[in-house]
Amino acid sequence: MTSKERLSLFDTTLRDGQQTQGVQFSTADKVLITETLDALGLDYIEGGWPGANPTDSAFFDAAPKTRARFTAFGMTKRSGRSAANDDVLAAVLNAGTESVCLVGKSHDFHVRTALGIPLAENVENLSASFKHIVDQGREALYDAEHFFDGYKANPDYALECLHAAYDAGCRWVVLCDTNGGTLPYEVTEIVKAVIASGIAGDRLAIHTHDDTGHGVANTLAAVDAGARQIQGTLNGLGERCGNANLTTLIPTLLLKEPYASRFETGVAPEKLAELTRASRLLDDILNRVPNKSAPYVGASAFAHKAGLHASAILKDPTTYEHIDPAVVGNTRIVPMSNQAGQSNLIKRLGDMGLEVAKGDPALGRILDRIKEREGQGYSYDTAQASFELLARDELGLSPKFFDVQRYSVTVTRGQNGNGSHSEAVVVVNLGGQRKISASESIDETGHDRGPVNALSKALSKDLGPYQAAIDDLRLVDFKVRITQGGTEAVTRVIIDSEDAQGRRWSTVGVSPNIVDASFEALLDAINWKLIRDGAVPA
Amino acid sequence: MTSKERLSLFDTTLRDGQQTQGVQFSTADKVLITETLDALGLDYIEGGWPGANPTDSAFFDAAPKTRARFTAFGMTKRSGRSAANDDVLAAVLNAGTESVCLVGKSHDFHVRTALGIPLAENVENLSASFKHIVDQGREALYDAEHFFDGYKANPDYALECLHAAYDAGCRWVVLCDTNGGTLPYEVTEIVKAVIASGIAGDRLAIHTHDDTGHGVANTLAAVDAGARQIQGTLNGLGERCGNANLTTLIPTLLLKEPYASRFETGVAPEKLAELTRASRLLDDILNRVPNKSAPYVGASAFAHKAGLHASAILKDPTTYEHIDPAVVGNTRIVPMSNQAGQSNLIKRLGDMGLEVAKGDPALGRILDRIKEREGQGYSYDTAQASFELLARDELGLSPKFFDVQRYSVTVTRGQNGNGSHSEAVVVVNLGGQRKISASESIDETGHDRGPVNALSKALSKDLGPYQAAIDDLRLVDFKVRITQGGTEAVTRVIIDSEDAQGRRWSTVGVSPNIVDASFEALLDAINWKLIRDGAVPA
Repeated sequence: MTSKERLSLFDTTLRDGQQTQGVQFSTADKVLITETLDALGLDYIEGGWPGANPTDSAFFDAAPKTRARFTAFGMTKRSGRSAANDDVLAAVLNAGTESVCLVGKSHDFHVRTALGIPLAENVENLSASFKHIVDQGREALYDAEHFFDGYKANPDYALECLHAAYDAGCRWVVLCDTNGGTLPYEVTEIVKAVIASGIAGDRLAIHTHDDTGHGVANTLAAVDAGARQIQGTLNGLGERCGNANLTTLIPTLLLKEPYASRFETGVAPEKLAELTRASRLLDDILNRVPNKSAPYVGASAFAHKAGLHASAILKDPTTYEHIDPAVVGNTRIVPMSNQAGQSNLIKRLGDMGLEVAKGDPALGRILDRIKEREGQGYSYDTAQASFELLARDELGLSPKFFDVQRYSVTVTRGQNGNGSHSEAVVVVNLGGQRKISASESIDETGHDRGPVNALSKALSKDLGPYQAAIDDLRLVDFKVRITQGGTEAVTRVIIDSEDAQGRRWSTVGVSPNIVDASFEALLDAINWKLIRDGAVPA
Repeated sequence: MTSKERLSLFDTTLRDGQQTQGVQFSTADKVLITETLDALGLDYIEGGWPGANPTDSAFFDAAPKTRARFTAFGMTKRSGRSAANDDVLAAVLNAGTESVCLVGKSHDFHVRTALGIPLAENVENLSASFKHIVDQGREALYDAEHFFDGYKANPDYALECLHAAYDAGCRWVVLCDTNGGTLPYEVTEIVKAVIASGIAGDRLAIHTHDDTGHGVANTLAAVDAGARQIQGTLNGLGERCGNANLTTLIPTLLLKEPYASRFETGVAPEKLAELTRASRLLDDILNRVPNKSAPYVGASAFAHKAGLHASAILKDPTTYEHIDPAVVGNTRIVPMSNQAGQSNLIKRLGDMGLEVAKGDPALGRILDRIKEREGQGYSYDTAQASFELLARDELGLSPKFFDVQRYSVTVTRGQNGNGSHSEAVVVVNLGGQRKISASESIDETGHDRGPVNALSKALSKDLGPYQAAIDDLRLVDFKVRITQGGTEAVTRVIIDSEDAQGRRWSTVGVSPNIVDASFEALLDAINWKLIRDGAVPA
């Protein structure tokens, strides 16, 4: 029914993404990511290289059933043996996938330097390898390594390699910018030349890297020139600076012209709303801090900090947004900072469930207090929970759960190698009752975790009716920096906390004393959770 | 003597970069960044908006002297008053900068929605504002907000706005993709149309954002179409997804064709080698985790993880690198091989006055120990003094001045408002003599400065022969980050120290206990200074 052209989307998060420095997938991770990619509607999912390492072999042994074409990666047969007798290639085929993608040379320099064989022999290896795959009834893809650099050095040879694979029956010939140094105008020219040489655009794929920041632009340049498969990774994972970022490309293809009108992909428009979650899930699995400034899905992608922007956004969001954040499952943020005004404040409070009428004098007081505190070194950009507590205080909506009367914490260290030891004592007033608690700071492995941990443990040890609410509170991050507070340097501590319900919130404390600043942020973290859990003051 | 065209580079890290969520510059930060930008050779440095907030006002009051044109940002005069009587504009002019950049509307929708004035009135405001600036003998730049969206909606009006500013004498007309939704092919078309309308390319600047991942590509598309000034930020800081990344653009312009042959910029080719350090410095100042996968300057930008790549790199680095990492001051990382590291190491040690011959077995030991310690969470990128101490230790060039036997530090806080109190006791062995010293942490104003300060004072109170060398040591900055050390999270502390001779050096400590990590960094700071001062072990 549609007259749109089909663009194929090929994901290599589990193969090229695995080459990211610091990334190591488990088999279970790979299964979870495959399910996420398949739900989004990708056409191809490349799972790894069967036989290259134990994780990949185990993953292919227990490969999940996918709607997408599941693909095994490997390399073309080595010289001096037949395709049928190459054990590396056999391991790839034995994974039994519908599709097989083999990397092979296309740059004369690499054939000579890395392989050390005559140019013609590489062409023969390409032909024999892909004939072998097609003979086995599999779909073949040729990953033409260093193709763009190869074309620039020796166009005839690079094209000869492509045609050898194409003639052997490859479904897709993949033009790789392996080293990532190619610019868009070169991609345009070279893809056009490949098509002019007789390889159909709907048999051509583009595979780029981000070494000059053009991973996405190079991909679209290839599509503009006629290529019809895009290869990339979620969140732009990949060797060195990463691969073309599918998390950026997919919404651009579905939402921006001329792509939206001209092409269709396997990703249904309503699936876009799951994109932000898929991106964050991948970071969660890899225990990476999500990139806040990532296009479309980053936590800051729709954050409006400039005062002029923030006030216009409230009149009409299209004034400073290129798309509606909800379309990609993201949310708008108008951070509270000294650049924002009353109307932002009302909206921000509303998001927290605090309805305040326009003109309420508390609004002015809240803004004044934020300004005053920012002057002292506080920052409420990220510490939204501390901001809420400050606002509640001015609105008279701040229950008093307990009062800290006194605390003391000591760190000692003996002779070299004895390790450090921390212990804290905290005295609180809980509904008129004075309670004293002490705690050391020793984790499961017997290691000292320091004074803030000791204080946190002592404080939350015996909070009576609030105990249950506090027991599942966990400090997940802790950021400290020296900043200017009025005339002198102070320490600003931001604490990120998390609970068993998956809530995550940030609080801030400021003092010249790092322990004192941490304690302030800790108290805010506990008070915010007690409010959210609906605790009733004793 | 050159026939190359000049490209102007305009940095807005201190203005648009300040809109990054979570970024808050102090006045001192701004001075340091200005010096870094100026040393690189940028043509324009935009410092902020004088009058908009206390930090920016203070910064312009004490503006550093720069080779670059120092620029104040503001907005065109408001309706209903003359340019001379607009107090917001007056504050901008009163900063006394050579250049003034004013944001003004160019999109009819925004004139109606955000300003609520007739279209013609906006044009009059533009003319009057820029005439006023030029009349004061200043250079003017028109930041044409939402220009690309405006041109798409109403090309005649958008061009009318540009020409009003151009005719009023603006040196540069800045085409802004404020919402970041424009794609390269649109930039190409529209920039060409602007030039065809009669505005010279060497009066046109491009200002893009990265909301679709095209911040860099859109910038180059505008240059290809004829624009001759590039606006961007270090590390791509900026509102939402950030601005065009100058850290990516500068090496591309200097190293890649056709740009390298066609253009020259204020950044001398040899300055490129300082780019990685400038990028890391900005992250250090902001206490942000550097983006490992950043093009050119990221820690992973030349990391070769795939086995095929790593083995070829050892034969010839050009096989998998689009440029030589040393050209941008970055380094190659080849896991499993410290081969590559040795020559860098010799150079780095030489810079510190430590001459080590090629093949010295200590080199391998130093690299191994760095690797081991980096695995524990240490980082020697900035902590050069700790790196030197580690190397000296392996080279047998590390004098033993004193030994810390024991320390203890206590922080207490009484009832609300009483403030905190810190005191420390340190026991050292000094040439066989045991000495115990105690100190509180109270500054000149009677305020507690916290446990690290108390430890520092106690430690340096009575170090006998070393006392004179230590008396002028001052802690100037203190940065803390939670990082992964082996299997668990640890605290990494980096301390910046300074002495009366103007030396400044950085040391690192790592421990799950923040006080213990700080103490380690403190000891390194003292030992490094004693070595530099030529102290003789007791």
